Amino acid sequence: MPVVADMGEKSVVLVSGGLDSATVLALAREQNHSCYALTFDYGQRHRIELDAAHHVAKLLGAVDHRVVQLDIGWIGGSALTDNDIPVPDAPSDGIPVTYVPARNTVFLATALGWAEVLGAQDIYIGANAVDYSGYPDCRPEFIQAFEKLANLATRAGVEGKAFHIHAPLMLMSKAEIIRTGVRLGVDYSLTVSCYNPDLDGLACGVCDACRLRRQGFADAGVADPTRYYYR
Amino acid sequence: MPVVADMGEKSVVLVSGGLDSATVLALAREQNHSCYALTFDYGQRHRIELDAAHHVAKLLGAVDHRVVQLDIGWIGGSALTDNDIPVPDAPSDGIPVTYVPARNTVFLATALGWAEVLGAQDIYIGANAVDYSGYPDCRPEFIQAFEKLANLATRAGVEGKAFHIHAPLMLMSKAEIIRTGVRLGVDYSLTVSCYNPDLDGLACGVCDACRLRRQGFADAGVADPTRYYYR
Repeated sequence: MPVVADMGEKSVVLVSGGLDSATVLALAREQNHSCYALTFDYGQRHRIELDAAHHVAKLLGAVDHRVVQLDIGWIGGSALTDNDIPVPDAPSDGIPVTYVPARNTVFLATALGWAEVLGAQDIYIGANAVDYSGYPDCRPEFIQAFEKLANLATRAGVEGKAFHIHAPLMLMSKAEIIRTGVRLGVDYSLTVSCYNPDLDGLACGVCDACRLRRQGFADAGVADPTRYYYR
Repeated sequence: MPVVADMGEKSVVLVSGGLDSATVLALAREQNHSCYALTFDYGQRHRIELDAAHHVAKLLGAVDHRVVQLDIGWIGGSALTDNDIPVPDAPSDGIPVTYVPARNTVFLATALGWAEVLGAQDIYIGANAVDYSGYPDCRPEFIQAFEKLANLATRAGVEGKAFHIHAPLMLMSKAEIIRTGVRLGVDYSLTVSCYNPDLDGLACGVCDACRLRRQGFADAGVADPTRYYYR
């Protein structure tokens, strides 16, 4: 496992406990960044993710890891935070019901605040436009608009220290993400992607997130370490 | 007091409990908007603001009022959230130490999520570039950048329902804000501006916020209803 070393540029890395953000953390560490991992407890159904985020941050060498209580579950409007909206077990057209309104905007805004106080100019997020093309806040133009906002919103930006929002997975397929992580030593058995995990963290195998993940391992030619309870 | 009526366009109004946001709520109500008031409990020192926000939302006719627990106090970096940084009792050059990193970005992002679920396309914020010219996230260019971001970040934006971020106080002096509120029937004795209020909500009279407020009432020719403990 990588050794924690506070030697490179500081960066804030959004870590959800899923496959994508674990890969992003490994990529930031490969750049020799001192990584400050940030996880949100926002009333998501799959709280097992928070444990996964803790293990991912620790084992991939984050310098610090914070879990922010963020009370946006009451906003509702998403199958991931509203128990009245079922998680679908088949892909849908358009924007999925698992879209959480303004989630990445809130996450990046909070990361920006921490980055400013740390003196970090780099923020990493695992946004990906390929697999979840229906999520508006996972598109390159969203990331670019947030970067512009960040440099207007902050003391650091005003003083000429530009922020950079990195979304290195943006145009990668799931298989490419997995191959990248395997090259960097990411243990994907630590990560949780399923929208309907059981209490032990086993995955359903049939939700959108499980389907994409399974196919990704198959396409990458990598043995899938995920434990499934369903099929 | 205005009567609550859910008849106009829905809007989300950021209400802090201070003088400015109370005026903004009154302005949105004047436009016949159905106002959903949003307040943040973000670890600020002056928690008496939360009570003020409750009274303001109720008495100025908000349809709903939510207080969001937002755990950004640990980020530190501001005299308003970090007990190790004293609140100054004299104006300073540059960006004040009372600036909270990325605060308005986080607030607007959360408001955006609620607006999307409500089907509201208007968000009101009491940002003002005149009195606090040192706050980077109180400038017109910040508001414009956030509006652009909002329309890229959301399902509604993608589907062509444009969001508008309203900052109607942006270019007003404190006296103009107070005259506007008085015209609309705002009872400013309900509001708290002081950075160092005592436990009963009395104001210090000497912090930046108190100075601006006192001078605003004097310049507007309006009797100052604020109760001071200091001088």
